[in-house]
Amino acid sequence: MTTLYDVAAIGNAIVDVIAPASDAFLDDQGLVKGSMMLIDDDRAAGLYDAMPPAEEVSGGSAGNTIAGVASLGGRGAFIGKVAKDQLGDVYAHDMQAIGAVFSGERLEGGAGTGRSLINVTPDGERTMCTYLGAAARLTPADVDPTVIEAAMIVYLEGYLFDPIDARRAFAKATGLARASSRLIALSLSDSFVVERHREALLGFIDSEVDIVFANEAEITSLFQVDDFDSAVRAVRGRAKMAAVTRGAQGSTIVAGDAIHQIDAYPVEKVVDTTGAGDQYAAGFLLALAQGRSLDHCGRLGSMAATEVIGHYGPRPQVSLRDLATAHGL
Amino acid sequence: MTTLYDVAAIGNAIVDVIAPASDAFLDDQGLVKGSMMLIDDDRAAGLYDAMPPAEEVSGGSAGNTIAGVASLGGRGAFIGKVAKDQLGDVYAHDMQAIGAVFSGERLEGGAGTGRSLINVTPDGERTMCTYLGAAARLTPADVDPTVIEAAMIVYLEGYLFDPIDARRAFAKATGLARASSRLIALSLSDSFVVERHREALLGFIDSEVDIVFANEAEITSLFQVDDFDSAVRAVRGRAKMAAVTRGAQGSTIVAGDAIHQIDAYPVEKVVDTTGAGDQYAAGFLLALAQGRSLDHCGRLGSMAATEVIGHYGPRPQVSLRDLATAHGL
Repeated sequence: MTTLYDVAAIGNAIVDVIAPASDAFLDDQGLVKGSMMLIDDDRAAGLYDAMPPAEEVSGGSAGNTIAGVASLGGRGAFIGKVAKDQLGDVYAHDMQAIGAVFSGERLEGGAGTGRSLINVTPDGERTMCTYLGAAARLTPADVDPTVIEAAMIVYLEGYLFDPIDARRAFAKATGLARASSRLIALSLSDSFVVERHREALLGFIDSEVDIVFANEAEITSLFQVDDFDSAVRAVRGRAKMAAVTRGAQGSTIVAGDAIHQIDAYPVEKVVDTTGAGDQYAAGFLLALAQGRSLDHCGRLGSMAATEVIGHYGPRPQVSLRDLATAHGL
Repeated sequence: MTTLYDVAAIGNAIVDVIAPASDAFLDDQGLVKGSMMLIDDDRAAGLYDAMPPAEEVSGGSAGNTIAGVASLGGRGAFIGKVAKDQLGDVYAHDMQAIGAVFSGERLEGGAGTGRSLINVTPDGERTMCTYLGAAARLTPADVDPTVIEAAMIVYLEGYLFDPIDARRAFAKATGLARASSRLIALSLSDSFVVERHREALLGFIDSEVDIVFANEAEITSLFQVDDFDSAVRAVRGRAKMAAVTRGAQGSTIVAGDAIHQIDAYPVEKVVDTTGAGDQYAAGFLLALAQGRSLDHCGRLGSMAATEVIGHYGPRPQVSLRDLATAHGL
């Protein structure tokens, strides 16, 4: 079958509500800096009340990745669930406006479109409190087989291991992907996700996943080891490939016995790290879909991540394609 | 009566939807660069479809001014109408989060919260297409007498000359303000507003307004003259005071026979001029409420305007109070 998409992703469709915050504010609100916490409607209302004026932009981990793929000139599709409401309109618009296909039935009469309240401290760290709303109501029915079958790579967001129906949607997607010989990639998303679902994630990786994306905290938590090298040894043989991001230390790609060490791009000032991992995945996956070397994949990922941490918001603000050309990638 | 507010404003409560645009895009959409056009629901949907991914932030001219007053450390109140919907929640949150009072009943079961689709060209000019929605449904009942009576200055947004009920709300507000010996200020808002309502605006200025805010295009249109000096001569005697902004040429304050010429602050790069006039009014009005000299009023206005044109979005991103201190104001 011809491929229509370089990457098709399934993830939480979330509108980000971004505001600056002090460390003291995080303490007052009982928030762990750098983490992602799921919150209910009441807690979301209370936290939002305490936050300063914010800006609203489309976010969601895998959605950000598809935005990055599109910005790099790739063909992306995104499967996620928003409600029939204003923020759902915003989300759908922003996805379609970048040239990506947005797939999934709108939820009516239930929860509203999901929101992530993101407090960004002066060091650029983002602390996220996410009210999933409609996003948590993704079901297998939302997974359009024609989208999965037409994608070079199917990218799954670990956050969706929380709702059971979404996990069934993953199962449907991986079944379809396998049947069409597509690559399957999984992001571990967050160390708390790994804590909550370690066994299920390991089983899923063993049976379904070709490429694992993680940061250092997530990969060490997955294998319950203390150091990075042990995690690298552990991931070998469980997935064809793993790409582990390490902040300023760049990233490490594990592929069979080979290890590729990729330097981070220099960054003038870290403004907001939201979306860094998502954009790394965007660059990596698009380069992979285009058959480039793993070093090239890592470099394109690093470049995309560097752009997004230089400004507020989780998606590229310039054409990543032009930026890649400027960097000779 | 003791004053609780330095400035109370009445204006369109609008969420801005901001995206970058090319000049060709404006042409394709038949938009006049730098203008504000009122559009209906259908046109809004069509234009939004054609726009790239956008960010959503609270806006509205007088609302931006109150945000500026609060950022400068002043006490602000805002009267405006949003719907009972998500964007209405965002608007109310952002107003309360800056410490301003937000007054006005939420509209239920009718139009949604108003939106302004703002296309920003590379020269920093903003072209606005506004779907008023709930904002146009402001009525005299939304004007809380205790808010008007407790404000040093009542600031009215010229855009509200379009809906007749809003004009009646202005009449209620000015009546209350006069009875409590409050100053009344009016922004002309837009040269097309002036075109549409020239006679009504002139009558209103003659009978009710102490301070007129305008830019060069608006003031020359109001008096149907070709040059700035003729407009200055014309405005004398019609209002106690006029403050006219002239972009990079600074501003001119006309007060009786006196004219104060205020220089613009140097600006590194004009990113987005949205909110420049609103922030000028914020600095000017707060300084006036605090009994400062007219030169000081103009300088504080210029400083506030300079901050906002250096970034995307119509409201200050740093504490204007700290910025004023740094500038010795």
